Amino acid sequence: MTDLLQSAIHSGYFTLLPRDRYLDPQVFEDEYRKVFSRQWLFAGHISQLAKPGFYFVEEILGESVILTKTQEGEVRAFLNVCRHRGHRVCEGTSGQTQRFVCGYHRWSYALSGKLLGAPAMPDGDGGVDYRDLSLFDVHVTVYHGLIFVCLGAERPAELASQLADKTRGIERFRLEHTKEAFRETYHVKANWKVLLENYLECHHCAGSHRELCKAMDLGAMFEETRGWVGEYFGGSTPLKETALTASLDGHLLSTPLGDADPANPADVEGTGLGIVPTLTRVIVHIDHVLVHALRPLSPEEVSWQTRWFVKADAVEGADYHPDRLTEVWRATNGQDVELCQAAYKGVRSRRFVSGPLHATREAAIRSALATYTDMMSAAG
Amino acid sequence: MTDLLQSAIHSGYFTLLPRDRYLDPQVFEDEYRKVFSRQWLFAGHISQLAKPGFYFVEEILGESVILTKTQEGEVRAFLNVCRHRGHRVCEGTSGQTQRFVCGYHRWSYALSGKLLGAPAMPDGDGGVDYRDLSLFDVHVTVYHGLIFVCLGAERPAELASQLADKTRGIERFRLEHTKEAFRETYHVKANWKVLLENYLECHHCAGSHRELCKAMDLGAMFEETRGWVGEYFGGSTPLKETALTASLDGHLLSTPLGDADPANPADVEGTGLGIVPTLTRVIVHIDHVLVHALRPLSPEEVSWQTRWFVKADAVEGADYHPDRLTEVWRATNGQDVELCQAAYKGVRSRRFVSGPLHATREAAIRSALATYTDMMSAAG
Amino acid sequence: MTDLLQSAIHSGYFTLLPRDRYLDPQVFEDEYRKVFSRQWLFAGHISQLAKPGFYFVEEILGESVILTKTQEGEVRAFLNVCRHRGHRVCEGTSGQTQRFVCGYHRWSYALSGKLLGAPAMPDGDGGVDYRDLSLFDVHVTVYHGLIFVCLGAERPAELASQLADKTRGIERFRLEHTKEAFRETYHVKANWKVLLENYLECHHCAGSHRELCKAMDLGAMFEETRGWVGEYFGGSTPLKETALTASLDGHLLSTPLGDADPANPADVEGTGLGIVPTLTRVIVHIDHVLVHALRPLSPEEVSWQTRWFVKADAVEGADYHPDRLTEVWRATNGQDVELCQAAYKGVRSRRFVSGPLHATREAAIRSALATYTDMMSAAG
Repeated sequence: MTDLLQSAIHSGYFTLLPRDRYLDPQVFEDEYRKVFSRQWLFAGHISQLAKPGFYFVEEILGESVILTKTQEGEVRAFLNVCRHRGHRVCEGTSGQTQRFVCGYHRWSYALSGKLLGAPAMPDGDGGVDYRDLSLFDVHVTVYHGLIFVCLGAERPAELASQLADKTRGIERFRLEHTKEAFRETYHVKANWKVLLENYLECHHCAGSHRELCKAMDLGAMFEETRGWVGEYFGGSTPLKETALTASLDGHLLSTPLGDADPANPADVEGTGLGIVPTLTRVIVHIDHVLVHALRPLSPEEVSWQTRWFVKADAVEGADYHPDRLTEVWRATNGQDVELCQAAYKGVRSRRFVSGPLHATREAAIRSALATYTDMMSAAG
Repeated sequence: MTDLLQSAIHSGYFTLLPRDRYLDPQVFEDEYRKVFSRQWLFAGHISQLAKPGFYFVEEILGESVILTKTQEGEVRAFLNVCRHRGHRVCEGTSGQTQRFVCGYHRWSYALSGKLLGAPAMPDGDGGVDYRDLSLFDVHVTVYHGLIFVCLGAERPAELASQLADKTRGIERFRLEHTKEAFRETYHVKANWKVLLENYLECHHCAGSHRELCKAMDLGAMFEETRGWVGEYFGGSTPLKETALTASLDGHLLSTPLGDADPANPADVEGTGLGIVPTLTRVIVHIDHVLVHALRPLSPEEVSWQTRWFVKADAVEGADYHPDRLTEVWRATNGQDVELCQAAYKGVRSRRFVSGPLHATREAAIRSALATYTDMMSAAG
Repeated sequence: MTDLLQSAIHSGYFTLLPRDRYLDPQVFEDEYRKVFSRQWLFAGHISQLAKPGFYFVEEILGESVILTKTQEGEVRAFLNVCRHRGHRVCEGTSGQTQRFVCGYHRWSYALSGKLLGAPAMPDGDGGVDYRDLSLFDVHVTVYHGLIFVCLGAERPAELASQLADKTRGIERFRLEHTKEAFRETYHVKANWKVLLENYLECHHCAGSHRELCKAMDLGAMFEETRGWVGEYFGGSTPLKETALTASLDGHLLSTPLGDADPANPADVEGTGLGIVPTLTRVIVHIDHVLVHALRPLSPEEVSWQTRWFVKADAVEGADYHPDRLTEVWRATNGQDVELCQAAYKGVRSRRFVSGPLHATREAAIRSALATYTDMMSAAG
């Protein structure tokens, strides 16, 4: 246990971190190097790359990242930065192309990132070696159709192997055979860890999340979150006995995914996974998938994005209605944004010191902060 | 005399401080610790806490502060920060309550600030001791109905004793028996000391403040400001012989306060007090009270607030008219905001060095900067 | 060659500077002292000071600068900062006056900058010596009617002598006998050097600047820019054989300047000058003059201004039409702003390193960065 974590132990109980960890720009810089750029971050879904040459662009941690599929069908990720003078090589947000051509001086790159041509500057001329001038590569992995990237130099341990024991049975929901039905992004004025902490406990749910508590089994959720230990965790969001999915009335919101059967309690239970501290949370219900992704922007700002996925062949307006599909989590996110911003105002107080966390209901915060502290204490 | 002040002496005359004192974020941090958080700052009026359980919330120096009256009738002040995870315990700006309940996890506090309950976390359980978890206390004092707070750890010397010699006769105006009739807040793009300096001299009034100069006796004011020495000072704003109050025509603007009598020259003279360098200025005219309060926001931004008080039983529309009551100082404040912002542009110039201050007309600036310099030179 | 420049040499080819030079606030501060405040910066035209007492105010590098003509006909420049407490002494942007009077405490200054009077503070009284309290002087020079200032303490080498060999024949265009017909200012979210670099090469023009390429001879321009070596350079913007001026159709846009004759190829060739790295670029065509001026605002923001001048007696609507006069460069500037902002996003990437610059087409960048590096390496 590191010194930082030690300081979060107070007369026998566990607390949040010291105030400066939520404010200090230097801490944020360290977090960038030691946490954000060493983890798999959710970037999109394989349905966005249906064919070779399809691409899309994501803004992640201040970088513009291109995700694309090569002619060989491989998913690749690059920085959207021309190797000449830095201009973006993709100016739109998605499309299909044979090559990426920088709009500034017409340098062109293959889908594999290789430099194809620099006008008036042929390969080998005057010391220029095209092999050194491919687009900057970004680590990428695909997990049951979900695309994750890592911005740092080192490729993290493989996501599939990290999650293997934690997401048994996930394959029957055929996540790769879904499509995005909706997304919502919130710009939140709070340190990213305040959102992380908020997400990791349901102790505040009864008082604040009326819609979420309609179908969710709060008592079971208290137990569930205790199991959220380590950088990777699995597990569903438990429902009340009467509910088939996380809807206001417990009724299905869309066509069951993959081979799932509403008559099968294990399928109704669903599954899920999480990565902390740079939070990605995937909740698999029988009829839809939620992905929450937290993207820190600065010490005092964070982006929170939620995407809803349904079965690839579900028909909008017939099989699912976006308004109904999203109403529980749009309400919940809106409530959480308010809570986090109000909590962060207190964390910014010059006299703020955290009080005690609840030993079990807030145990997942303790676990995630321990993971965070370990990462921050690593060399480099 | 400290080195800093010494540097403000130039070939025999006195100047403003060196340029960096008006720009440097580190100086502002030091000022927070050594000046702002060691002084009594105006926070409101006792009429806002008419009964036990009444409360109001003020934003002061980046902190949200709750002012309230206990069942025993005591005025108390707390940070509006839950001791659990920092969420605000008061979300509105005023009201009446039996207890403060945090909207995040339902921790509840008595009007005395004591923790009453933390759900699922009983007192004494797992090392949790409610006695350690009261709301953060803020020093508070009431002076003739005016409420002041101090945000620092140390309680400053008692306001009443500091002012005793300087505000003789103030009691006959019954400030505690007034009510707020109007307030106006200005967000000014200037260092707070530029506003302080502007307020402390009337050398600019003839050229800039037509409305203020209608009733104010400028020559007497030059004399008056020379007496503004030390952290606390008293004294009225002198009027021309023909004026009963600071109005455009010299006529009364509201019912005389307390026992004051327009036929009594001493009552027409009025009284007042000031605190520097974190300026609070109270001007007591026979029929209304003005409170100016300066609240620094950052090295380059400051809030300037003026409140107008009239006799508690004066009737709006009959005894006083808000437009007329406020027209002199709304005009004057608007003019001062422009002057201070334009002066600050010059102070920011890389070549700025202050010229000479007028030996008598700008003497109060010299005095206040000496007080400032003494505070900044103190240990801690 | 300095270490900084050395680091821009990579396996035989030349690159941009290291990424931090485009981001770091401390680098920007050093640039202010060592580059921006040591160069002649374009400030205006002598036609703005037609008579003694005429003045105009320019915002340059965070300073408000007054340009004026004395009774003796001398052009002078001062900081717009009162020597008392910093308030602006000119509140408008131009006019005619006998003296500058500060609106705060009525200090007044002669057109020569001398303090004429400080109310209630006579010269010689209490150590006050008016001779020490003139307006802060700014270096100024006039070159063929173009006014330049230098904000630093040291007067730079005389502009006329620096440019003498580079602008032969410029006098026949009678730049002093022109008037401003239009100006446009762009606030660009990029480091100033990204705009400098963009301006110094035409390698991007064919792909991005359709309008500019109508009349400009791109091949000749590639040659021209190779000659842009050192802090000062001369030279025209070469036109295609069929064009008389830089218009969309090659036809004249206004009355020929001075003694210039459209039948004379040397007059059609025009002339021009440039100053780097704080870029001023003057392009003299036979019928109009363009002045581009780059004014850094912060590490990540820059102002780019273009002014168009025509013969002093040309009549708007008859001899020239502002829309037509300006359409090439308004289009070009708009395109360059987009390019520079997009390039700067890449330069900000944490993994950005510049690729190779083209040995000849981007040679002027190499030269200007060498000049920049030499200035930054100087003592002081």
